Amino acid sequence: MNFSSKLLEEAVQAFATLPGIGKKTALRLALHLVNRPAEHAEQFAEAVQNMRRHIKNCQVCHNLSDEPVCTICANPRRDRSTVCVVEHIRDVMAIEETAQYRGLYHVLGGVISPIEGIGPQELHMDSLIARAASDEVKEIIMAISPTIEGETTIFYLSKQLKPFDVKISLIARGISFGGDLEYADEVTLGRSIQARIPYRTEE
Amino acid sequence: MNFSSKLLEEAVQAFATLPGIGKKTALRLALHLVNRPAEHAEQFAEAVQNMRRHIKNCQVCHNLSDEPVCTICANPRRDRSTVCVVEHIRDVMAIEETAQYRGLYHVLGGVISPIEGIGPQELHMDSLIARAASDEVKEIIMAISPTIEGETTIFYLSKQLKPFDVKISLIARGISFGGDLEYADEVTLGRSIQARIPYRTEE
Repeated sequence: MNFSSKLLEEAVQAFATLPGIGKKTALRLALHLVNRPAEHAEQFAEAVQNMRRHIKNCQVCHNLSDEPVCTICANPRRDRSTVCVVEHIRDVMAIEETAQYRGLYHVLGGVISPIEGIGPQELHMDSLIARAASDEVKEIIMAISPTIEGETTIFYLSKQLKPFDVKISLIARGISFGGDLEYADEVTLGRSIQARIPYRTEE
Repeated sequence: MNFSSKLLEEAVQAFATLPGIGKKTALRLALHLVNRPAEHAEQFAEAVQNMRRHIKNCQVCHNLSDEPVCTICANPRRDRSTVCVVEHIRDVMAIEETAQYRGLYHVLGGVISPIEGIGPQELHMDSLIARAASDEVKEIIMAISPTIEGETTIFYLSKQLKPFDVKISLIARGISFGGDLEYADEVTLGRSIQARIPYRTEE
């Protein structure tokens, strides 16, 4: 691209470092900020700086937090006996969105992946084991993606957690609600037949 | 969305004000900055702030510039007798990309659009007329989109420029190179037949 302005070029390059943002989109975003009032760009930059400077990981569950302990872990009305293990912060948000879960979380930060060089040491596993060792925790729910890496992680974790008196469960797997059988992949469909559940009518 | 962090929420909202960025994409961008080293977010925010604080519009052609006069207008090797009139800064970049034009530019900032409340006063027309009045300018090329608003703008400008001794030209219109006749719209195809040009072989 031919930039008449070095300042514009640098802002475009900064936007283009973000995932999924190409050069053309970066240019559109930068020009948008040029064409809007200056306060808008200042507020935008400050929001990014404030977040990066002051955001923390919760000391208990490693979720993103403004305080040393996140609002979920600090909430006295949450069920402290259940811990839901997830890969990423986004998974916490997705589960919270359902409003079906009132326990606590534990964010691993990923799954075991030898190809990407991620072993148990790179993940927040020790702190999960420490939580399992406390008397408070009675059940650990594995809400981890059903991929090969995810299954490996669940297997590894379940072995590590064996010595402790906690129930380990998996989130249900099968055909999505609203999903079309015809378009379900064969592994999902096959397993959902094997793991069929009794039909119950509400009485 | 359920944010465990106000700081994250504010950054996501800031990203979501940008054009074409929805809430989910905004979250992905914000989390990317959280997961990368802090310097990266700082550099990103500074590039945006620097651009917005220090960028100028060229006094001559209204292109974006770091100096009061842009690098194109200040370049002594450009042909000062030709001025190419465009709507937006992006059009200057697109024409520069072709490396086929060595004259100067004039950025109108849009086209006349009564529906959007944009009249000649909202555009950089007076400064174009002042440039046309100088002895230096011999030709003005209208490189404006062939839309109804664009045609109106060209018509209005050509009337305003009539008193001056300048040649007014339009960029060629017709079937795109590599374009398929079958898929060309009928107006383009019809006009390109009417405006046919003699075939010349290079000798």
